[in-house]
Amino acid sequence: MSRRPRAAIVVTGSELVRGEREDRNGPFLAAEVLRLGLEPERITIVGDRPADLERALADGLVADICLVSGGLGPTHDDRTIEVIAKAAGRKLVVDEALESEIAEVSRMIAERLRRPYSEFTVGVRKQATLPEGATSLGLAGTAPGVVLETDGCVVVALPGPPRELRRLWPRAVESEPVRRVLERAPARGRYVLRFFGTPESAVAQALADAGGDGDGVEATICAREFEIHVDLVVEPGAEERAAALAGALRESLGRYLFTEDERSIAEIVLDLCRERRLTLATAESCTGGLVAARLTSVAGSSDVFRGSLVAYSDDLKERELGVPRELLGSHGAVSAEAAQAMARGARDRLGTDVAVSVTGIAGPNGGTEEKPVGLVFLSAVGPDGEEARRIDLPGDRDMVRGRATAAALHLVRRLLTQT
Amino acid sequence: MSRRPRAAIVVTGSELVRGEREDRNGPFLAAEVLRLGLEPERITIVGDRPADLERALADGLVADICLVSGGLGPTHDDRTIEVIAKAAGRKLVVDEALESEIAEVSRMIAERLRRPYSEFTVGVRKQATLPEGATSLGLAGTAPGVVLETDGCVVVALPGPPRELRRLWPRAVESEPVRRVLERAPARGRYVLRFFGTPESAVAQALADAGGDGDGVEATICAREFEIHVDLVVEPGAEERAAALAGALRESLGRYLFTEDERSIAEIVLDLCRERRLTLATAESCTGGLVAARLTSVAGSSDVFRGSLVAYSDDLKERELGVPRELLGSHGAVSAEAAQAMARGARDRLGTDVAVSVTGIAGPNGGTEEKPVGLVFLSAVGPDGEEARRIDLPGDRDMVRGRATAAALHLVRRLLTQT
Repeated sequence: MSRRPRAAIVVTGSELVRGEREDRNGPFLAAEVLRLGLEPERITIVGDRPADLERALADGLVADICLVSGGLGPTHDDRTIEVIAKAAGRKLVVDEALESEIAEVSRMIAERLRRPYSEFTVGVRKQATLPEGATSLGLAGTAPGVVLETDGCVVVALPGPPRELRRLWPRAVESEPVRRVLERAPARGRYVLRFFGTPESAVAQALADAGGDGDGVEATICAREFEIHVDLVVEPGAEERAAALAGALRESLGRYLFTEDERSIAEIVLDLCRERRLTLATAESCTGGLVAARLTSVAGSSDVFRGSLVAYSDDLKERELGVPRELLGSHGAVSAEAAQAMARGARDRLGTDVAVSVTGIAGPNGGTEEKPVGLVFLSAVGPDGEEARRIDLPGDRDMVRGRATAAALHLVRRLLTQT
Repeated sequence: MSRRPRAAIVVTGSELVRGEREDRNGPFLAAEVLRLGLEPERITIVGDRPADLERALADGLVADICLVSGGLGPTHDDRTIEVIAKAAGRKLVVDEALESEIAEVSRMIAERLRRPYSEFTVGVRKQATLPEGATSLGLAGTAPGVVLETDGCVVVALPGPPRELRRLWPRAVESEPVRRVLERAPARGRYVLRFFGTPESAVAQALADAGGDGDGVEATICAREFEIHVDLVVEPGAEERAAALAGALRESLGRYLFTEDERSIAEIVLDLCRERRLTLATAESCTGGLVAARLTSVAGSSDVFRGSLVAYSDDLKERELGVPRELLGSHGAVSAEAAQAMARGARDRLGTDVAVSVTGIAGPNGGTEEKPVGLVFLSAVGPDGEEARRIDLPGDRDMVRGRATAAALHLVRRLLTQT
């Protein structure tokens, strides 16, 4: 098997290295290069200290391709280009065509801000200055994406704002130097298996029992909000072994397997409803709108999803969802009975075919010995029946709410696939 | 000024370096060491290839403290301890006391899983094997946190699951070797200024006009969903200069300044309501429950927040929020008129003092020339009046929804602070 080209990712930004903001560019670029058949080898996040950036870039140039995000702006703090030139042993030269291009954009900005263009000329020249031999990938704002082929490594520099980086990334992929790296990456196969309702350790054990990964099949097992995601990445020649592994997992854990594609559970629920022309609503207490937000994060959800009643107070549970006051008094708002009444109430009230409800104690306060923090009741009602579930969730408020949201969506899936 | 101790963070995990999951430990640890007065210098994310981990650790040992997350499990893929020992030039030895501690936990796990304990002994011994001179910080599951003082660097290894890492982190901070590093970090001052409604460039300009950072004051400017967050970190001796900078920002941008603490806009809105004993509801279309979810993410929000009507379909806007059918027909659901009717309807219907509504086109589909993707109307109604806003948001579906959510909360703030 030929050696697969390796990618290093260098992300610059003081706010990122200080943990004031979470980096989105590193994971995006890593997933992209993986998809293109390269092996992501490291993501390094550094601030704008030149020495830190230099060290990260020197490490990055050891890979076959080095993707750099950020530090392309017009000010002296933006040092990526100068440090790349230094690391690659290239002179810095002004790209005249690029300079006119940036000047044009900057003139418009000057006009909009009502500042004299003369304030921009230094910045324009700085942004048009590239390492000798580098080419521009076009502009995002006034910052150019840049690609440079050095001895053994192709360096791509992209602007830091995630939206601008994502806009210029396809041009980087199409550039000659990057294409030559990609040609050295043989296509890999991939299996995606998503389980729900079984612990990560059981999936790991099933994988080990089936012979484990290795020999051209690389497995990753990832737990996310009760879902266990298994990815098998398959090198050329290992197709049979991978098919056998996937088959063994299907066999031993089939009843927990809910999809073999990358659709989220929200997408799956919407698709299940769409197939049967069912409409959907939610009634939420402790999740406070998260189930609805997750469903509506999917573009085109409006043909299925109608709305939600977030009834955070008992008063609204009674008045808007029709949960009987006596029920709230005898069983409490966090009970199987209340969950069922909420789901039925939402279905009636919002006039949908299917409704799902969540009521629980997200914490950190409000727990009792009988009903501790993390106790959640779910109910799903549809045209052919009902499903209910009680769960005890570990973790903090965010985790309880996130997991209860996932569990609510999976309960709808169960309701719609078991009939 | 004495040199401030520097921290390197090494995060291990194949799913992280491949972008299959976003790392939470790096930002958490970076923010923690920053708070403790250290300077985070880099976050490196690597997979479980020993060579990659070795290189990342060798780089990390150049710092004064190196925090490593992940790779402490019982299997052969978990190589952090062995690589630390190698990088530090230490032998691996079994810690007998630690071995009994891990054995005890493992016996319970074996029992629960109904597996013979003999299957665990190799893993137990592996997890009790530490570099010579290292000490355990206690267990999370069966994995010990570990601290090791090497020549010039204190290495701390913590388990990868974020919850376990956060649980053991305080013990690391209290450990002797880490305390000695922290003693070398003089206390820093900090100013926090949060602006809304002005572009990042205007804040950067105001900062530059006031003399800019440097000379013991380090400024970071960060844009998040329309908010511009300015942090000034102040070295001993630079207090006056920092106070002058903060004063200049207050003066030039005072009307956009909404807080000088770290409360989120959701917390601020809840506090404003609480002070005046007002209750709050939301009526949401394109945000699909996100405003309610943001408010209820704050613990204790139930004394203010009552509920939400997510009316995704026009039908529900009419029936549940009382938006007149004629209004929807003449102005459309995405209009200032519909937003106002939604907010008024939610206030009436859910019986609160204050309500805020959002209606817009989140995209990617559904836009027209007259009403393009990103067009959002907001309305807030309270006991003393109303506020309305129209915004045109750039970006994809997630960004439009996120920014509309922030704008809705800020509209409530404006409603409650202008009267």
